[in-house]
Amino acid sequence: MHRTNTCGELTIADLGKTVTLSGWVQKSRDLGGMTFIDVRDRYGITQLTFNSDDDDSLRASARELGREYVIKVTGTVIERSSKNLKIPTGEIEIKVSSLEILNSAKTPPFTIEDETDGGEDIRMKFRYLDLRRNPVRENLILRHKTAQEVRRFLDEQNFLEVETPVLIKSTPEGARDFVVPSRMNAGEFYALPQSPQTFKQLLMVSGFDRYFQIVKCFRDEDLRADRQPEFTQIDCEMSFVEQEDVLNIFEGLAKHIFKKIKNIDLGEVPRMTYADAMRLYGSDKPDIRFGMQFVELNEVAKDKGFPVFDAAELVVGINAENCAYYTRKQLDALTDFVKRPQVGATGLVYARYNEDGTVKSSVDKFYTPEQLLEFAKLFNAKPGDLFLIMAGPKDKVRKQLNELRLEVANQLGLRDKNKFAPLWVLDFPLLEWDEESERYHAMHHPFTSPKPEDIALLDTNPGEVRANAYDFVLNGTEVGGGSIRIHDRELQSLMFKHLGFTPEEAQKQFGFLMEAFTYGAPPHGGLAFGFDRLVALLAGIDSIRDVIAFPKNNSGRDVMIDAPSTIHQDQLNELSLNLNLKVK
Amino acid sequence: MHRTNTCGELTIADLGKTVTLSGWVQKSRDLGGMTFIDVRDRYGITQLTFNSDDDDSLRASARELGREYVIKVTGTVIERSSKNLKIPTGEIEIKVSSLEILNSAKTPPFTIEDETDGGEDIRMKFRYLDLRRNPVRENLILRHKTAQEVRRFLDEQNFLEVETPVLIKSTPEGARDFVVPSRMNAGEFYALPQSPQTFKQLLMVSGFDRYFQIVKCFRDEDLRADRQPEFTQIDCEMSFVEQEDVLNIFEGLAKHIFKKIKNIDLGEVPRMTYADAMRLYGSDKPDIRFGMQFVELNEVAKDKGFPVFDAAELVVGINAENCAYYTRKQLDALTDFVKRPQVGATGLVYARYNEDGTVKSSVDKFYTPEQLLEFAKLFNAKPGDLFLIMAGPKDKVRKQLNELRLEVANQLGLRDKNKFAPLWVLDFPLLEWDEESERYHAMHHPFTSPKPEDIALLDTNPGEVRANAYDFVLNGTEVGGGSIRIHDRELQSLMFKHLGFTPEEAQKQFGFLMEAFTYGAPPHGGLAFGFDRLVALLAGIDSIRDVIAFPKNNSGRDVMIDAPSTIHQDQLNELSLNLNLKVK
Repeated sequence: MHRTNTCGELTIADLGKTVTLSGWVQKSRDLGGMTFIDVRDRYGITQLTFNSDDDDSLRASARELGREYVIKVTGTVIERSSKNLKIPTGEIEIKVSSLEILNSAKTPPFTIEDETDGGEDIRMKFRYLDLRRNPVRENLILRHKTAQEVRRFLDEQNFLEVETPVLIKSTPEGARDFVVPSRMNAGEFYALPQSPQTFKQLLMVSGFDRYFQIVKCFRDEDLRADRQPEFTQIDCEMSFVEQEDVLNIFEGLAKHIFKKIKNIDLGEVPRMTYADAMRLYGSDKPDIRFGMQFVELNEVAKDKGFPVFDAAELVVGINAENCAYYTRKQLDALTDFVKRPQVGATGLVYARYNEDGTVKSSVDKFYTPEQLLEFAKLFNAKPGDLFLIMAGPKDKVRKQLNELRLEVANQLGLRDKNKFAPLWVLDFPLLEWDEESERYHAMHHPFTSPKPEDIALLDTNPGEVRANAYDFVLNGTEVGGGSIRIHDRELQSLMFKHLGFTPEEAQKQFGFLMEAFTYGAPPHGGLAFGFDRLVALLAGIDSIRDVIAFPKNNSGRDVMIDAPSTIHQDQLNELSLNLNLKVK
Repeated sequence: MHRTNTCGELTIADLGKTVTLSGWVQKSRDLGGMTFIDVRDRYGITQLTFNSDDDDSLRASARELGREYVIKVTGTVIERSSKNLKIPTGEIEIKVSSLEILNSAKTPPFTIEDETDGGEDIRMKFRYLDLRRNPVRENLILRHKTAQEVRRFLDEQNFLEVETPVLIKSTPEGARDFVVPSRMNAGEFYALPQSPQTFKQLLMVSGFDRYFQIVKCFRDEDLRADRQPEFTQIDCEMSFVEQEDVLNIFEGLAKHIFKKIKNIDLGEVPRMTYADAMRLYGSDKPDIRFGMQFVELNEVAKDKGFPVFDAAELVVGINAENCAYYTRKQLDALTDFVKRPQVGATGLVYARYNEDGTVKSSVDKFYTPEQLLEFAKLFNAKPGDLFLIMAGPKDKVRKQLNELRLEVANQLGLRDKNKFAPLWVLDFPLLEWDEESERYHAMHHPFTSPKPEDIALLDTNPGEVRANAYDFVLNGTEVGGGSIRIHDRELQSLMFKHLGFTPEEAQKQFGFLMEAFTYGAPPHGGLAFGFDRLVALLAGIDSIRDVIAFPKNNSGRDVMIDAPSTIHQDQLNELSLNLNLKVK
C-alpha cells in the first residue's frame, strides 16, 4: 500500500496516528540537526521532519532528496511547534520513521510554483509539469466540477446524454472540416464534426425530446488568438419548444452553474434584441458589466458646419463618466487606439464637460458652447464627464466605437473578472451578406428558422429577415448560441436555395435530414454553450488554453507529443493517398 | 406553448384538467361515432377521443391523421370507460377540443412497434425512425443512466474527468490508426486515439492522482462481427496504487452500476489467474454463469492403446451433467460443430454415464469398462452425465473445447442473460508470440509492468513473464482490462527493446513519455471498461450496435448520412494530397 492518507487531510485530530504518505518533494530545508520536507500531492502539502538525533542515516537520506522526487514515507502525526494556519495541514507534521524513494526526478525546466519562471513555450513542451502547478490544476478541477454540474442539472431536467458519431460526412459549408481518409472505402473520407447539429436534429425526429452532450467538435481554421482546432461544446436540443422554453431552461442551467461553482446568484438574465445591441453597444455581444451605452448624436452634431460629421451616416458617442480629467496625452492615446488598423477609424472627437458647466471639445470651432451643451443633454451627462464621439457609415462606426468603449472600460477598471453580467441577445438576422462570395450566408447555420412574420422578406429584402436565434453573452463574450430550427422540408429547401445551394447540392449533403423531416419532425430548437470559454470565464482567465489539459499552439501543433507528424508511406498506400506537396 | 404535459404522466389524479399534449400518432381507430387516437412521445402514450356528437368537423380532422403525424391537442382529462391498467395513463383519456397538425408524415418504411417488420439494412438507413421504437430508445436511455452513474461514482471517489485530445500522433503499434491530414502542417498527419493511454499516464506524472473519462476511441480495423470504428471507453487511471487498489475501486464501480441500474447486488467478484482460466475454461474470459470446468484426462486416457489420445499433448473434457440422454444425432451435431473451420478440431469423443452405472463411449474398443469408470471419477460425475472429450496440442485443444463448452451451455440454456457472473482474471502474460511477425508483442500494451519477480525471465523465457495486468470479465465477455504501468524510464526502454523497437523508434514515438518518467513519475495503474459492451450486457442484448445511437455497418459506413464520401479536389489540394487509387 502506497498511502494511508493524502497530503491534504491530516490535522490536529490525527495526532499520534501512524500514517503513510506518498507524493512529490515540494521543498526541503535544513535547520540544525533537522531536515524539513514539504511533500505535495493533488490534495495538499504536509510537512515531514527528519531528526538526526532520532535516526541520522534516515535524515541523511532525506537530505539527498531533490525537488520533485517521488517519495513514500511512514511516520507519526505530531503537533508542529511553528504552525502555519494558512493550510489545512499546517498544525501538524509527520515525524518520519521510514522513507522510500519511489522515483527520482531531474530538476524541472521551470519551477513548480503558482508563479513560475517558465515561458509559454517551455511550459507547453513540458505540459505534464505545468499541470503540476496549483493554478493550472485548479482550472482543470473547476472544469471537472462544471461538467458534473451541467450533467446533473440536465439529467434532472430529463435531458438524455446521447453520443453522436465523430466520423461523419464532410459538408463544405461554414468552416473547414478536418477529414479522415477511409482505408476500407478507398478514395472516400469521413469528416470530423464541427458540431453534432444534424444528428441532434435527427434525435428530435426520433422523439428523444431532450438531448444533450458535452462533446468535442473540430474546425480546421487558421487559428486566430485563442481558437483551438478541437474544442468542447455543451450541446443541447429540445422538442415541442418555442424560443421562450429554450431560454428558460438554459438560463436555469447558467444559474445552476454559477450557484454551484461560484456560489453566485446570477439573477434574471436581461434580454436585448440584436438591433438594440448593435445600436447601443455596436456589438452583438455587449459587455454590460458597465454602462457607457452609445448615444446617437446626428440631430445635434450634423448640419452645424463640421464636414466630417456632416458627411457621416452616423455620429455616435459614449459618455465616459467622471473622465473630464483625462489629459491631452491620454486622449491622444485613445485617438491612436481607434486609428490602429485593427479598429480602422479616421479619428476621434472628444469633449470635456467641465466642472464649471462649460463644454470644451476638440471641435470647438464648429460648435457654439450652447450647441455643445445639447450634446451633453443627449449624453445625460453631468459636469466632470468626458464625451468620446466618432462618425462614419453606421455599421462601421458602431464597431469602431465598440472597440473604444471596451478600451476605455479596461482603462477605468470596469471589466472586473469577478463580476458576471449575462445577457440574452435575441432576434438575430437570419442571413448576412458575405462580401467575398457576394452572396448571403446563414448567420447561425442553414437550419435556423426565420421568424414566420419575416419569411415574406426573404425574396425582397433578405438581410432584414430576423431569425428565431439567440446568443447567451457573458461579460462581452458569446458563450452560447442557438435557435429554433426549421422542421419543415419545404422551408428547409427554400433556405438552401437562398443560401445558394442547387437542389442537387442540397440533396447530396443534407438529403437525409430533409427526408427525415417528411416522416414526422416535431418543432424543435436548441443551444450550444462553448464549454472551454465558459470554464475560462468561471476561472476568471482570458485564454481557453488554460482550461484545456493538453492544448495545441497557434499552428495547431501539440508540441509536447510533436503532433501532427509524418506517417509511413505504407500507411499512405493503405489509404490510397499520395502526398502532393507541390500544390501549395 | 406546445404542451402542458407529456404523454406519459396524466393519471386519474388529473381528472377534469385542461391539458395540451404534443406527440406522434401511434395508432387510430374508429368506433361508431368516435375516433380514438393514441398519441406517443418519449414518456408514454395517451389516448385521445374525438366524438362526432361534440364536434363533427374536429372528429373528421382526426380521421385524416396518418401514422406518425405530429400533432398538438388541447382537451380535458376524463376517465376511460375501458381501462388499460398496463400503462400509467391507462385509466384516463383526453376529450379533445382542439387539434393542430404540427407536421405530417409519410408512411414509415417499417412499423414503429416493439417488434418491427423492418430488416437491419432499412432500419439503419432510417435510423432516426428505428430510434423511435421503444426497445431501441430504452437501450439508449439505459446508456444515458449508466453514464451518469459511472460519473457519479467516480466523482465521489475523487476522480477528475479530464478531456484528452482527439487529434494526436500516429503510433503504428497495435491496431491501425485513423489519420487526419493537417492542412496547416503540409505532409503531416494527426491520428485519432486508439485510447488515451499515454495522456492518462502523463496526467499521473502531473499529479492528477485519479483520472477518468468516458471517451470515444478509434480503430481502423477490418470490422469483425460487432466491432465499430469508433467506440466508447470508461477510461481510468490512479496514482500510488497497487493492483489490489485498482481492483477494489472498479469492483466498487461495477457493483454501483448493477445496483443502480439493475437493482442487482453483484456480490464479491471472484478472481482467477490467467493460467487457471486457460486450464479450466480454455479461455481468458470464461463464462462462469455455469460450471462445466475442464477436466484433464491424460493420466487415465493415454497409453491405453487409443492412438489419437496417445499422440496428443493433452486429453481434456467436460462433463455435461444429466445429458446422457443426448441422442446420436445430437452428438453427431456436436462433432460437426467442433469440426467447423471456426473451431478446427479433428473429432470429438463422447461417453455416456448410464443410469445403470456403466459408461458407454465412442471409444469402447480402446478402453475397458473399468477404465472408463476412471474417467467418470475424474469428472466427479454421476450416472446420467455425458462426457465430451477432445485431444490435441494443449493450447489448441483448450480453445476448441472452450467453443464446445459454450455451445453445449447454449443448448442447455445455461447462459441466462438475466444472470450476471463477473470475474477478475489476473496475472496475464506480459508478452505473446506473434506467428506472423515472428516476435513477441505486448499482450495488453507496451506500458504494462511485468511482475518484479518475473523480470529476470525477460531474457531467458519471455513468454513466461507475467504482467500486473487484469481483465474484468462478465458472462464470458471481456468488459474491462488494465494494468499497473511501468513508471521507470529504464524499465520502459527495456520493454520497448524486447518488443523489437530500436532505441530511435522508441524515442521518436514515445520519447515524450519516457522523458516524463524522468521528472518524478509516481507508481500508477488503471483500467478501461468497454462502455458499449457494458451497456449491451446490462441491456441483455448481443450487439453493441443496438446501444449506439448512430452505428456504422461492417464496412465502416454510416448508411443514413452516406459517409464516408468523396471530397472536392480543392479540399485535397488544400491538404497537399492526391488520391492514388491504383495502389490497391
